[in-house]
Amino acid sequence: MGRVKSFEQSGQSSGHSVRKQCRSGAWSGSTSGLARGFAQGNVVILPEKAAAEFMRFCHRNPKPCPLLAVSEPGAITLPMLAEDLDIRTDLPRYRVWIDGELVDEPIEVKGRWRDDLVTFALGCSFSFEEALLEAGVPVRNIIEGKNVSMYRTSIPCEPAGRFHGPLVVTMRPMPAAQAIRAIQITSRFPSVHGAPIHFGDPAAIGITDLGKPDFGDPVSVEAGDVPVFWACGVTPQAVIQSAKLDFVITHAPGAMLVTDIRNTELAAF
Amino acid sequence: MGRVKSFEQSGQSSGHSVRKQCRSGAWSGSTSGLARGFAQGNVVILPEKAAAEFMRFCHRNPKPCPLLAVSEPGAITLPMLAEDLDIRTDLPRYRVWIDGELVDEPIEVKGRWRDDLVTFALGCSFSFEEALLEAGVPVRNIIEGKNVSMYRTSIPCEPAGRFHGPLVVTMRPMPAAQAIRAIQITSRFPSVHGAPIHFGDPAAIGITDLGKPDFGDPVSVEAGDVPVFWACGVTPQAVIQSAKLDFVITHAPGAMLVTDIRNTELAAF
Repeated sequence: MGRVKSFEQSGQSSGHSVRKQCRSGAWSGSTSGLARGFAQGNVVILPEKAAAEFMRFCHRNPKPCPLLAVSEPGAITLPMLAEDLDIRTDLPRYRVWIDGELVDEPIEVKGRWRDDLVTFALGCSFSFEEALLEAGVPVRNIIEGKNVSMYRTSIPCEPAGRFHGPLVVTMRPMPAAQAIRAIQITSRFPSVHGAPIHFGDPAAIGITDLGKPDFGDPVSVEAGDVPVFWACGVTPQAVIQSAKLDFVITHAPGAMLVTDIRNTELAAF
Repeated sequence: MGRVKSFEQSGQSSGHSVRKQCRSGAWSGSTSGLARGFAQGNVVILPEKAAAEFMRFCHRNPKPCPLLAVSEPGAITLPMLAEDLDIRTDLPRYRVWIDGELVDEPIEVKGRWRDDLVTFALGCSFSFEEALLEAGVPVRNIIEGKNVSMYRTSIPCEPAGRFHGPLVVTMRPMPAAQAIRAIQITSRFPSVHGAPIHFGDPAAIGITDLGKPDFGDPVSVEAGDVPVFWACGVTPQAVIQSAKLDFVITHAPGAMLVTDIRNTELAAF
């Protein structure tokens, strides 16, 4: 996945410089490890007629759907996240969904833009992984250069209108002492998924085999490790897909919106 | 105001029992001090066509507008806050606004109900005042049996469509050591206004005379006291009033929605 490498190579870039590279078409890859210290966001762009319902879904499910910002209808800016943002061009790559089907993965969506579109930016676990690393808690998927393991659970989200579905979680295995520290650290960051939702027995939340994640890669689980589970930003993506809206734009996997907000600004304390 | 008295007399009631009294018409007064330990909420009920815009306003201004819950359009329940709630009858008293004018202060709104109404419940400082008292931080307005002092500031809220206006704050005077403790305690409660937004010089936030609050009562400020300012739930009420919507229902001042959520459940830590 090249994740560790890009973390080392590009960590000194700013949110602004990453967005500029995306806007010019020079960067269309993963944002993992880019602009270290700056928050990244999952992006969902919906027609206004579905936006209120989706916003209610996010409010009722703040752990998988931590809302960083919502645009005015038709606005291409999100001034609360970045000064110079053009949401139509500033992500590395987009996904365009029509009637629930993926129809395109373009590097900009100017030609698709409509005056009724509302943009949602949701917090992303890249922010809390950075906080864990800074606090000396090793993150297995980063060490192994893999994508984090993600699983569908048996926990239903609180529905809102047509939006409903199971909670999707990420899993990071670690010894108990590190898990306690990880709970403390991620509790400080409610706007990027916050504290874990579970640790220990995977079956208790409907996961049958840790070695077979529904998304991402399996990672090593060592003797003495406790699996720790966090709510995941894939949850709203799966929920939106199953709602089969006539038109949706999202970020492409791993190709997030890089903001000018520092991760430290997101800390509750 | 009888606040201290009601705190002593009725603190042992539950959210359910208060709502039942309101529903039957037996209680139409202030909820201050009722159902101690349970969160109370400011209530705003709007037509669906304005609801998304108001929800964006709340999201952009989480300190004055901490969203506890939002209903489905037309729903009379808020299952996330209370099992048996009927929002049309379970507040002690309502205010009905047409074109920005107060037209009625009824004890129920069954006859006014419409299928397009969306209910917003916003956190209320009664919850954090209780946390302060439990931590041994005296709350001057409670000691003096007065309504808290409230002031319009020179700080503009982040606008959302037609919703805009100045931040309104409450002020509680206390010695510096208590102010530090109060900052720690209220930081734990972001969903009921959270940490203060300012302390010290009132002029720095556009307040000219602490002795003349814009709403509520003046309280004593003693030698060595620091005025501490928190965002206030009157902010959204003033913003809604100036937006002159064709139809809005709110709680009457002090006559809040009493929920089944314990204040301790709202703590971030």
